[in-house]
Amino acid sequence: MNRPRLDDRLADLETDGYLIDASQEDANQLYLSGFTGPDPFLTLYADGAVHVLVGGLEYGRAKKEATADGVERHADYDYEYGGREARNDMYAAFVRDKGVESVSMPPRGPVGTADALRERGVAVTVDTDDRLREVRAVKTDDEIEAIREAQAANEAAMRAAEDLIAGADVATESDDAETGVLLRDGEPLTSERVTEEIEVTLLRHGCALDETIVAGGAQAADPHDRGSGPLRADEAIIVDIFPRSKATKYNADMTRTFCVGEPNETLREWYELTERALDAALDAVEPGATGEDVHAAACEVYEEAGEPTFRTDPETETGFIHSTGHGIGLDVHESPRLASGGGELEPGHVITVEPGLYDPDVGGVRIEDLVVVTEDGYENLTDYPIRFAAE
Amino acid sequence: MNRPRLDDRLADLETDGYLIDASQEDANQLYLSGFTGPDPFLTLYADGAVHVLVGGLEYGRAKKEATADGVERHADYDYEYGGREARNDMYAAFVRDKGVESVSMPPRGPVGTADALRERGVAVTVDTDDRLREVRAVKTDDEIEAIREAQAANEAAMRAAEDLIAGADVATESDDAETGVLLRDGEPLTSERVTEEIEVTLLRHGCALDETIVAGGAQAADPHDRGSGPLRADEAIIVDIFPRSKATKYNADMTRTFCVGEPNETLREWYELTERALDAALDAVEPGATGEDVHAAACEVYEEAGEPTFRTDPETETGFIHSTGHGIGLDVHESPRLASGGGELEPGHVITVEPGLYDPDVGGVRIEDLVVVTEDGYENLTDYPIRFAAE
Repeated sequence: MNRPRLDDRLADLETDGYLIDASQEDANQLYLSGFTGPDPFLTLYADGAVHVLVGGLEYGRAKKEATADGVERHADYDYEYGGREARNDMYAAFVRDKGVESVSMPPRGPVGTADALRERGVAVTVDTDDRLREVRAVKTDDEIEAIREAQAANEAAMRAAEDLIAGADVATESDDAETGVLLRDGEPLTSERVTEEIEVTLLRHGCALDETIVAGGAQAADPHDRGSGPLRADEAIIVDIFPRSKATKYNADMTRTFCVGEPNETLREWYELTERALDAALDAVEPGATGEDVHAAACEVYEEAGEPTFRTDPETETGFIHSTGHGIGLDVHESPRLASGGGELEPGHVITVEPGLYDPDVGGVRIEDLVVVTEDGYENLTDYPIRFAAE
Repeated sequence: MNRPRLDDRLADLETDGYLIDASQEDANQLYLSGFTGPDPFLTLYADGAVHVLVGGLEYGRAKKEATADGVERHADYDYEYGGREARNDMYAAFVRDKGVESVSMPPRGPVGTADALRERGVAVTVDTDDRLREVRAVKTDDEIEAIREAQAANEAAMRAAEDLIAGADVATESDDAETGVLLRDGEPLTSERVTEEIEVTLLRHGCALDETIVAGGAQAADPHDRGSGPLRADEAIIVDIFPRSKATKYNADMTRTFCVGEPNETLREWYELTERALDAALDAVEPGATGEDVHAAACEVYEEAGEPTFRTDPETETGFIHSTGHGIGLDVHESPRLASGGGELEPGHVITVEPGLYDPDVGGVRIEDLVVVTEDGYENLTDYPIRFAAE
């Protein structure tokens, strides 16, 4: 945790404390408490100290694991499975015990807890700026190292995926499968098969993930389609992997687009354009530049080539139809945004840069690197070749 | 989705609608919308119809996938990345467009959205009963089938774990490793190695999980310790696996406790007692019995043997120190609770039954089956032997 930055950003709160009610699944909670509690628990920042309140079953582990200044348990407030009202009484007592009469909560904090505290006379304000999210955006060296490690696992998984794709045969009329379908050992090579290989490789490298994208042809034209069914020759296959380290909980993110066989001229142009858009966006990354600047650099490459973007046509469903990138850390998607309205980049921001083009009639192409903003530009944390022809 | 049960449970709302603002990670959202959106989106139940509001990037997929009666996109409300206030204006417009002036939100709904709607004149009430959670507790036949499939994958993973443990050698003085440590191919068999095998097996069977428990010795005495480092002979090794089907998103859950070598007399007694507590609890499962009744049946076995439980000593840190079980479905932990205060069981409840004993000086023993409450008792969805000696 970047404690000085935390103290700085919470210094001008208009409330006595900052309260989080969430499990470790919530990145703000994990960041502030340092504790991987599977069930929701409270963390309160007040007077420069971090206090955690957990159930008895978690107490021992929380005392060992949490980076908080203090850990208490429900029994310290005479609460034992007493139902909802008693639980809310305990929450109010815990907060008041720290001399706190008013708290800020992040926008996605639970309204049930907020309203229950209000009923008990504790003022609750929504921190619409989501300050902890902003604190988390600038990484410490340890956090960058954790992301670098997750990215190394990611590259091993991408290698496994590319190997499967590159080593595929293409079905001809003499095969059982439809002509053009990729084959491994005579069986169609599916998105699901590649995904499984990616996930197993990640597990072997200490990472896990809920989802990954292996999408070919028209499926690749929907940036959020995870992909399914047989992959085919001559089409663009988007492989987008965003694993999380099981040890550190930090994420990495990378996309490559591959082709087996002969992509048509449009796909070849798209790939080349996207490489140029990536380079232009990367060139724009430096402290003081905004996320909007970086997004603009990618958009300009596409727009000059006559491809639609959200800037030229907010309603477009083809072309460059997403932002250029996002911060990454304990969340896969966090601050800053590389998009219209995206704010100033700072050293320590870890961001993805991922331009792409989409049209169901053509397919999809996306190339994504992961970089950290440095004092004088950026360091690319990605060490994986950029090539359309899988090899 | 159990639509009649949903309509029934939401019939007496005192608000015009029921609103969820969450991603697919929230089980209520996934249940009500049927859509696996990776970013938070709105689902509104009003006048017997379910309406979903998503961003443009998700619109195509949501239209195909969502079970909702209607799907709209941000552009329908002239919203385009306009920042927080514009987003909240859109949310209020979407709600009002359905003739809704007041909404209920689940207790863990985001306070930011709740307060923003209030500021815009939409009354927001917290549904402290979490009605959707209660709707979800009773499963349809399709949901039970989905859980059964996840459980089949779970059993394959348990088999892989038991194989690793049963096939281990025990280090003697002539080995490099500490005497008593389990060895595979000459290397210490660690919790991490068994965990990896479990996770890879689950992936091969279409399931994923964030965490699993493989904890031996004193680690097993903390029911939430995931376990780490070398496993040893003569100690109890708890293996608790709760995988989620990637296709259906439904969970399964099972625990077995294994031993290689000679457990001491206390551990043998604990294992036998826990088998009896499991049987007693299962015998108590039937419609009309309460979760408290089932918990009491398990507690009585332990209490008669002189082991402490939360009933006899709420402060105890050894003995039977958790509830007897929990509902399971889209969440690993959901309604009903098999614990003090747990309510009446109904046909279609899918629950775990998992008594256990814990003491850092002895270790931990837990045995967990997964069952569905039927019209006249229960059906056990678990088909895995119960035996202490790994084989």
